[in-house]
Amino acid sequence: MPIALYDVPLLDHHCHSLLRFDRPVTAEDLRGCFTEGRDPGLLARHLPHSLFYRRAIRDLAQFLGCDPTEEAILVRRAGEAPDAYARRLFEDARFEGLLVDFGFRTDVHFDHAGLAAVVPCPVAPVLRLEALAGALVAETDTFERMVEVYGEQVNTARARGAVALKSVVAYRSGLTVAPPDRQTAKAAFDAVRRTGPAGPVRLTQKPLLDYLLWLGLEAAAAQDLPMQIHTGFGDRDLDLRLANPLHLRPILETPALSHIPIVLLHCYPYVREAAYLAHVYDQVYVDLSLTLPFAADGALAVEEALGLAPTTKVLVATDAFTLPELFWVGAHHARDAVARALQRLSRAGYLRGREAEGVGRQLLNENARRIYPVRRG
Amino acid sequence: MPIALYDVPLLDHHCHSLLRFDRPVTAEDLRGCFTEGRDPGLLARHLPHSLFYRRAIRDLAQFLGCDPTEEAILVRRAGEAPDAYARRLFEDARFEGLLVDFGFRTDVHFDHAGLAAVVPCPVAPVLRLEALAGALVAETDTFERMVEVYGEQVNTARARGAVALKSVVAYRSGLTVAPPDRQTAKAAFDAVRRTGPAGPVRLTQKPLLDYLLWLGLEAAAAQDLPMQIHTGFGDRDLDLRLANPLHLRPILETPALSHIPIVLLHCYPYVREAAYLAHVYDQVYVDLSLTLPFAADGALAVEEALGLAPTTKVLVATDAFTLPELFWVGAHHARDAVARALQRLSRAGYLRGREAEGVGRQLLNENARRIYPVRRG
Amino acid sequence: MPIALYDVPLLDHHCHSLLRFDRPVTAEDLRGCFTEGRDPGLLARHLPHSLFYRRAIRDLAQFLGCDPTEEAILVRRAGEAPDAYARRLFEDARFEGLLVDFGFRTDVHFDHAGLAAVVPCPVAPVLRLEALAGALVAETDTFERMVEVYGEQVNTARARGAVALKSVVAYRSGLTVAPPDRQTAKAAFDAVRRTGPAGPVRLTQKPLLDYLLWLGLEAAAAQDLPMQIHTGFGDRDLDLRLANPLHLRPILETPALSHIPIVLLHCYPYVREAAYLAHVYDQVYVDLSLTLPFAADGALAVEEALGLAPTTKVLVATDAFTLPELFWVGAHHARDAVARALQRLSRAGYLRGREAEGVGRQLLNENARRIYPVRRG
Repeated sequence: MPIALYDVPLLDHHCHSLLRFDRPVTAEDLRGCFTEGRDPGLLARHLPHSLFYRRAIRDLAQFLGCDPTEEAILVRRAGEAPDAYARRLFEDARFEGLLVDFGFRTDVHFDHAGLAAVVPCPVAPVLRLEALAGALVAETDTFERMVEVYGEQVNTARARGAVALKSVVAYRSGLTVAPPDRQTAKAAFDAVRRTGPAGPVRLTQKPLLDYLLWLGLEAAAAQDLPMQIHTGFGDRDLDLRLANPLHLRPILETPALSHIPIVLLHCYPYVREAAYLAHVYDQVYVDLSLTLPFAADGALAVEEALGLAPTTKVLVATDAFTLPELFWVGAHHARDAVARALQRLSRAGYLRGREAEGVGRQLLNENARRIYPVRRG
Repeated sequence: MPIALYDVPLLDHHCHSLLRFDRPVTAEDLRGCFTEGRDPGLLARHLPHSLFYRRAIRDLAQFLGCDPTEEAILVRRAGEAPDAYARRLFEDARFEGLLVDFGFRTDVHFDHAGLAAVVPCPVAPVLRLEALAGALVAETDTFERMVEVYGEQVNTARARGAVALKSVVAYRSGLTVAPPDRQTAKAAFDAVRRTGPAGPVRLTQKPLLDYLLWLGLEAAAAQDLPMQIHTGFGDRDLDLRLANPLHLRPILETPALSHIPIVLLHCYPYVREAAYLAHVYDQVYVDLSLTLPFAADGALAVEEALGLAPTTKVLVATDAFTLPELFWVGAHHARDAVARALQRLSRAGYLRGREAEGVGRQLLNENARRIYPVRRG
Repeated sequence: MPIALYDVPLLDHHCHSLLRFDRPVTAEDLRGCFTEGRDPGLLARHLPHSLFYRRAIRDLAQFLGCDPTEEAILVRRAGEAPDAYARRLFEDARFEGLLVDFGFRTDVHFDHAGLAAVVPCPVAPVLRLEALAGALVAETDTFERMVEVYGEQVNTARARGAVALKSVVAYRSGLTVAPPDRQTAKAAFDAVRRTGPAGPVRLTQKPLLDYLLWLGLEAAAAQDLPMQIHTGFGDRDLDLRLANPLHLRPILETPALSHIPIVLLHCYPYVREAAYLAHVYDQVYVDLSLTLPFAADGALAVEEALGLAPTTKVLVATDAFTLPELFWVGAHHARDAVARALQRLSRAGYLRGREAEGVGRQLLNENARRIYPVRRG
């Protein structure tokens, strides 16, 4: 009995915006969508040999009706109006909605209004704490003032439309978050102001990031907003040892924060660890975005996630960015990996009859609908 | 060629006692058997969606001939005499014997005599070091006296019927056990006496627990008793980072302890790490209780355990507690997960013909029979 | 569609030499080839029950036409001339070439000329840094002189025929390599000289090993030689926590070293971690020697490696040593594990038609041919 998830809409609770249509899309743009690596040699010599890339190009080409090559896809997309092309891919990928972190590549990506005008589904923003903080460090003169403005922004996030807050601290100073310490945070701020660049700053100072994360968590708790926290693989320059979600224990054990969903993003390769946290902590959820579709052993990751985490606690998403192709591939590959995992779990006796499709719907949209304050379109 | 382990008796070398029959069993009792989580919201909203729970309720209902719901099972069990009901489940689950840690929920569980009167198989006790130590801290006035009584108890354990000693230090202060230090242990004891409650204490003081574990290990070595050590997931409040069995290296490298079996309990998600230790250390064994049946990817865990550990080194058990339903599910799901793993390993060429069933018997009873000083019934 | 890799030659980029033919091969010699453990009890009672050993003995016996027992194999090999016997196994195993670490068991193994006279394929040496250093500590009087000779040796390695440098620091002081510090290295050298044995030394002094590794890395970079680094399981006495390849981040982030291939050897159980590094770092490669064939879940490891690492970045090898039987088993089991993994990835949609066999060739020889400065025979 094959499991059919092809038509199940994806509420994509973790993704980014699209490249604006004001400049042509290059081969580098396309290729950069299929790896977290950035080295030119890596992209030229190795990326085309990743299983993810091979399959993505083949699947895309089949949908577009062209040869299975980057070049053919670029020619094909160049022959269509960019908005019609994007809409065609998004429609086939069947999104119920997009929860978008607009704090990534703000210089070249569409803003909220721009993206909403292109995609055929509702769009809601997720507030990326470190992007906000990095901008404020450049705009404010004192630590006190920065913290004041940061606090205003994060504490009014929901009123201003955000459906979640989000932290990438795993990729900066790591998930070994220390208790909030205003003194060391202020010292770190002063050091950044003295030595940092004039514009928005990519903050890496642990005391400052840790302090601001706690403020963000308190703001999420006060507004009943979910907090997304990146874990596992992601940005190229992370120290993966520091991205183990088990480091989050002090946050998860804080009673004042236990009523808001903590959504662990990506998780791979710490999927079983994340699932364990979802098993014992009411507030913890496991997301497998980026893992699906980047990791070719993604169906195994779904099975590991469902090993200890209830089916109400596992979510999938694309973590797509920049090009509509990645959203299309992300949505379809996620459905496929989930279907393969559910097939195996059905064969093993864990699910019967149509139950597997019900679980597929939980992972693809029902869980996200319940966690995030979204209205259905 | 399907692998038939249904009739192979399980020598359950790691489990707990049953709830006494002097109070009715509630839905919370039943539900609490299917998770390590304790949050009421988690149990109400999420637990019913774990794959383990779904399948357990369905399988139990099929055996009992009732609707696949908690309520139907509770009605059915309420309609039978509790001892007959328990015996029926234990008989169908086919236990060769139970090696029981009676130091868990002593206030509501049967003691040794009580349990032995109910179950249709031999019962032997396993001495839980931290439960003993927690009781003694409340009963003795000085560190010296506590250590003296603790020493008497652990050093006469075998003579008094125990088939193993057992430590849950992983769930208290972690497996990063420091060398024994009588001074800091005494200081920790004095602090507990000053500030702790009047009755038995749940000890968490690392210097004291580490010191008492070394005494326990020496006692096991002196009596040729196996030592069970919890690793991996288990209690809700553990720090999983500290439960990695690799932390046990200083203990495993101690020559005076190398002749007694060290049984690593649970292991998940550190199954490959545990199997590595069983590969290089003569005295180390890998147990997959709790992993099977709690983790729906348990068959994968069996395959990982057999990856590096010889088939003489891997054991399964239920880690069941409180209700006979969990023993029944634990035994049957363990057989099923082992059978699925052996099926895959047979297809891959590692086992031929009836060899797989022989390995199944090793995991279900032969290895435990060899490791523990038990007599066959 | 079965995937046929049986005839694909293996360029074995990581292996050791053979036992010289001047003494008879014992049961202990044979058995010792199938485990990293060394305890006599372990070898006697448990090793024969590892899935790897069971299958290896059966497969070897089938090839040799004898009973599937150690004894029958020993009788069979004793009845043939040792060089003809070795050649027969090597020929059937189809090696394109052997890249050999001759710094292991130098007292009983063939040297380069000796091995080359036996095996029917080209042989090239890999320079093992710690073996060189251990010998030099015994031969030189001062730290300055030792470093000078060590530098001469490593910096002329390529000119003298070496196709790679190699470090086993993971199994000595761990992969948490500190920045080079000549002062502490010198102090460690002086301490070894004062207290160490007279002959070659098995160095374990972290400051000294770390310092010499950096010198080795610089020498590899200067000669455009790949550096092999052991990670994950291997020697019996390692601390597996310190063998996680993620600890190598400071080395991988060093720009002056980023143009030479860093080949992570073994990796298991940190295969996904290693694959992540190969995904983001242009210079990193994942090797699965020892993992295949020692770990019966090796096909899973191949799938995990190909999860994030491009197919140009994954290599297999035997890590075989001492007896030709282990080379034969290693080569055939590696092909088999790769074929099973590719079969699963094909079924999952990642590869189509004959693509899987192309990937098999990459893993078995094409990637090694590109990474190492070898000429084809």
